[in-house]
Amino acid sequence: MFVPAIKGQGTEEQQQKWLPLAYKFQIIGCYAQTELGHGSNVQGLETTATFDPKTDEFVIHSPTLTSSKWWPGGLGKASTHAVVYARLITEGKDYGIHGFIVQLRSLEDHSPLPGVTLGDIGGKFGSGAYNSMDNGVLRFDHVRIPRDQMLMRLSQVTREGKYVHSNVPKQLLYSTMVFVRQSIVADASKALSRAVCIAVRYSAIRKQFGAQVGGPETQVLNYKTQQSRLFPLLASAYAFRFVGDWLKWLYTDVTQKLEAKDFSTLQEVHACTAGLKAVTTSATSDAIEECRKLCGGHGYLNSSGLPELFAVYVPACTYEGDNVVLLLQVAKILMKTVSQLTSGKPPVGTMAYMGNAQHLMQCRCAVSTGFFERSPDVVEAAVAHIQLIIVTKFIEKLQQDIPGHGVKEQLQNLCNVYALYLLHKHLGDFLVTGCITPKQGALASEQLGKLYAQVRPNAVALVDAFNYTDHYLGSALGRYDGNVYPALYEEAWKDPLNETVVPEGYHEYLRPLLKQQLKLSRL
Amino acid sequence: MFVPAIKGQGTEEQQQKWLPLAYKFQIIGCYAQTELGHGSNVQGLETTATFDPKTDEFVIHSPTLTSSKWWPGGLGKASTHAVVYARLITEGKDYGIHGFIVQLRSLEDHSPLPGVTLGDIGGKFGSGAYNSMDNGVLRFDHVRIPRDQMLMRLSQVTREGKYVHSNVPKQLLYSTMVFVRQSIVADASKALSRAVCIAVRYSAIRKQFGAQVGGPETQVLNYKTQQSRLFPLLASAYAFRFVGDWLKWLYTDVTQKLEAKDFSTLQEVHACTAGLKAVTTSATSDAIEECRKLCGGHGYLNSSGLPELFAVYVPACTYEGDNVVLLLQVAKILMKTVSQLTSGKPPVGTMAYMGNAQHLMQCRCAVSTGFFERSPDVVEAAVAHIQLIIVTKFIEKLQQDIPGHGVKEQLQNLCNVYALYLLHKHLGDFLVTGCITPKQGALASEQLGKLYAQVRPNAVALVDAFNYTDHYLGSALGRYDGNVYPALYEEAWKDPLNETVVPEGYHEYLRPLLKQQLKLSRL
Repeated sequence: MFVPAIKGQGTEEQQQKWLPLAYKFQIIGCYAQTELGHGSNVQGLETTATFDPKTDEFVIHSPTLTSSKWWPGGLGKASTHAVVYARLITEGKDYGIHGFIVQLRSLEDHSPLPGVTLGDIGGKFGSGAYNSMDNGVLRFDHVRIPRDQMLMRLSQVTREGKYVHSNVPKQLLYSTMVFVRQSIVADASKALSRAVCIAVRYSAIRKQFGAQVGGPETQVLNYKTQQSRLFPLLASAYAFRFVGDWLKWLYTDVTQKLEAKDFSTLQEVHACTAGLKAVTTSATSDAIEECRKLCGGHGYLNSSGLPELFAVYVPACTYEGDNVVLLLQVAKILMKTVSQLTSGKPPVGTMAYMGNAQHLMQCRCAVSTGFFERSPDVVEAAVAHIQLIIVTKFIEKLQQDIPGHGVKEQLQNLCNVYALYLLHKHLGDFLVTGCITPKQGALASEQLGKLYAQVRPNAVALVDAFNYTDHYLGSALGRYDGNVYPALYEEAWKDPLNETVVPEGYHEYLRPLLKQQLKLSRL
Repeated sequence: MFVPAIKGQGTEEQQQKWLPLAYKFQIIGCYAQTELGHGSNVQGLETTATFDPKTDEFVIHSPTLTSSKWWPGGLGKASTHAVVYARLITEGKDYGIHGFIVQLRSLEDHSPLPGVTLGDIGGKFGSGAYNSMDNGVLRFDHVRIPRDQMLMRLSQVTREGKYVHSNVPKQLLYSTMVFVRQSIVADASKALSRAVCIAVRYSAIRKQFGAQVGGPETQVLNYKTQQSRLFPLLASAYAFRFVGDWLKWLYTDVTQKLEAKDFSTLQEVHACTAGLKAVTTSATSDAIEECRKLCGGHGYLNSSGLPELFAVYVPACTYEGDNVVLLLQVAKILMKTVSQLTSGKPPVGTMAYMGNAQHLMQCRCAVSTGFFERSPDVVEAAVAHIQLIIVTKFIEKLQQDIPGHGVKEQLQNLCNVYALYLLHKHLGDFLVTGCITPKQGALASEQLGKLYAQVRPNAVALVDAFNYTDHYLGSALGRYDGNVYPALYEEAWKDPLNETVVPEGYHEYLRPLLKQQLKLSRL
C-alpha cells in the first residue's frame, strides 16, 4: 500500500525517487493511516505534522494514545518506511490530513529510529491467516523529516511555510480507490466460489438418512433444505463474478475519463464501486460461514479449509471502507440523485433507471433532513440499488454469446435463482410497496423450488467450472475426486498431537489423576 | 458425556459399578457415537457389536473407514474408556444401535489396548478454544468385551444370545435429551449477552464522525444504523434468558411426568426443546459475529474477546442435533398436530393456540405427502412457531412482579423491540398471509425506530445488568470502566512478537532482502 500512495499522491520527482527503492526492496514500506481511535473517519486522525520553517522540516508527532497508528500491515516488524497520514500544521493553521514518507527503522540494523515506537498489535481471528501478518502499532515523539517527504502532488508547503494547492484536480485520486475496490469485488467472487465449491462437492458425497430405515441413504445435495441454502450461494458466486468483470471495465473507463478531465460519471462510479464492495463482501462473509455449516460437523475442522477461509475473508467487510459507512455514502448519492430529477440533469449509468420513474419526478423531497433519522431504511435502499446492478449485469452477460453447449441455459437458471432468491429474501419490501402481489410472491417461491431441481443435476459441474486445483482449495471435503473420508482420516494423523501415542503430560498429570495421587488442590 | 449415558441407559448394577469409578477419576470416559460417515443419522452408524455365545462376549469392530468413531471430545488422548454406540448383532440379526462400555487404554501405561487405534482428529476453528480439546478418532479391530458391558436398561442380550426388551419405557430416555438441550438454550443466552455486552459498551466509548467536520465526534451507539443492528440483539439476549428459565421449569415438569409414566406432553416438550435449541443457537452464532463487526476493525483482534467467543460457540449449531434436522422434526410435529385438529384431541402447551384456529380445523390436509418437497417452507414455519414461544414467554415474564424502579418498563421496551424486529425481518410472511396490512408493516418499522431511541439511554445499564466481570468477558473493548484504548494498547505489547525489537529472522531473511543479497530463486 506504500506504492499506490506515492503513485497517487506523490509528485513525479517523488515517484522517481521512492518507487524504484520500494520495487527493488531497498526499503519495505507500509501505508499508515488508521489510528487506535480512528478508522472510518479519516478527517478525525490525530497524528500531527507541524512544519518548522527554521529547519525546513516537518515534525511528526503522536499527541495522544488514541493517535497511535494501529493496524497497518507489515508495520509491526518488517517495514523500514511508511506513508504516514497526519494533520498538516503550518503557520499555526491545521490544513487537515496529508501523506508523509517517514523512515521508521535503521537500514543498518533494523532498530527503530529515535522517537519511533513500533510493535505488533497482537493475535487476530483464526489460527493462521492474518496472524502471519505483522499488523502494527506506531508512535512518534517529535520525529523530524525533510519537507520534500510530504506527498506534494495535490498541495505543497513552500520553503517559507505557505500552504498552496497544485493545479492537479483532487478527483484524480478516486482512480486508485476505484481500482482497489473493484479488485475486492473480484476477490469476493473468488472466495465465495471457493467455499461453494467445497460445500457443493461434499454435499454430493455426504449421505445422511434415506427414504426408509436401513435402506440406501440420500446424498445431502438432494435435500430441498440443503438446496435452498446452497444454490442461491452458487448463483451469487457467478453473479459476483460477472458484476466484477463489468467493474473492471468501469475502472478502465473512468480512468480514461479522469485523464481527460471528464468527471461527469465519477459520482455514479463511486456509488457503484463503494456499494458493490459493501454488498459483495458482506454477502460473501455470511456465505462462507453458511457453507461451513452446510458441511455439518466436519466443516469445523481446519482440514475442511473453511474456518481459515472465513477468518481470512471477514476483514473485507471492514477494510477499505466499513460496509455500513459505504452504504450510507451510496444512499446519500441516491437521495441526491432523486432530489435532482426535476433539475433537467438526467441520472447516468446504473442510476439511469431513476429517470424513468415518473412518480419520483414529483418529489422535490426533503430527504436530506430526515436522512440520519431514517438511516437504517436508506441503507436498505442502497443495498437494493446495488442488488439491481448485480442482477442487471448478470442479465446483460446472458445477452452475449456464451460458448459451450447448454452453458447459457445453466447460467440462465442461476440468474433466475439469484433474482428470485433476492425477491424471496426481501419479500416484505416488494409487498409493502405494492410492486408485486402476495400471489406473485407465492409464485416466485414456487418457481424457486423448481429452479433448484433444475440446478441440481449440474451443481457439481457448475463448481468444477471454477477450475480450482485441490491444492488451491486446501480442503479434504472439497476434493475433486470425492475421496473425502480417506483424506479427512489422513489429515487427522498429521496433527502434532499424534506424534506420540501416549500424550505428553500423561505421567505428570493424567496418571496421578487416575491413580488418585494428584492433590485436588492442584486442580 | 460418559456419565449421562450410563445413567440413562445403564441398569442399576451398571450404574453402581461404573459411576463411582468415573466420578473418582479411576477412569476417564467419553461418549463415542458419531462416526466419520455419520452424525445426524444415528441409525446409520456402522460400527458393529456382534455377540459371540461361545465366550459370552461382544466383538466390537469397525468394518469400514467411514465407521471410524470421529469427534468424541476427550477421546483422542485422554479417555481410558468409552460408551461406544454400535449395531447389536446376535443370532445373525441386526437389532440396531445400542451402547457398550469399552476400555480403550491400559490403566497402567495409557497405551491403546490391542485392536484399538486412537488419535486426535486435528486442528479446529479458532486459535484456542476447541483446540485444547482432544476430539478423537477410534477404530476397533475385533475387540472383545464381556456381555455385561452392554448398557442393558432398555434391552438385554441373554447368555444364550436372545435379544429381549426390558419393561422400562423407551420414553424415559428423553429426559436426558431435554436436559442437555435446555442447558444449550441457557448457554445461548449467556454467550449472546456476553457479545452484546462487549459491543454495547464499546459502542458507547467509540466515537466516529460528528455533526460537523472538526467538531466533537458522536458516540457510535447514537447512530441509528448501529442501534438497528445492535438493539435487537440486546433484546434477543433477554428474550433467550427468559425462555431458557421457562425451559428449565419445563424440564422439571416433564421429568416428574415421565417418572409417573405420563407421556402426554412428551411430543410437545420435544418440539419445544429441539426447536428452541435450533433457533437460539443459530441466532446466537450470527449475533456474535454481528457484534464483532459492530466493533469495527478492533473486533478482529483476539483482545476484543469476540473471535474466540464465535469460534467456540458455533459448534452449538451442529452438536446435539443439527439445527436444520431439529427444525424438520419440529415441522413434522406441527404438521401432525394440524392434521389431528379434527380428531377431538386438543393440542397442548405451546401448541394450544392451534386449537383456536378455526380455519385450520377445516383442513384434513395431506401435508405428509408434500412434506419433503416443501421442506424449506415448513422449516420456516417451525422457526415461526418457536419465535412465537420466545415472544410469549417474554410477555409472560412481564406479567410477573419485577423488582427495581423502572426495570419493567425497560424490559417492556426490549420485548417490543424483539417482537417488532421479528415482524420486520419476516415482513413478507406476515404480508403474504394477510396477517397485517402494508400500512401496519410500515407503522411497525416506524415504531421500532422510536423504541431504539427509548432503549438508547439505558443500553449500557441493560448490559451492565448481566453482571459479567472483566475477567469473564476477557475483552479489552468490553471493559466495565470504559478504558478501552489503554487496554488495547497494553494487550498488544504482550504479544510474543514484541519480546524483541528487531524480529527473529531479520538477519537471515530481511537484511539480505534489503541489501539485495538474497537470491530471488529463494523467494
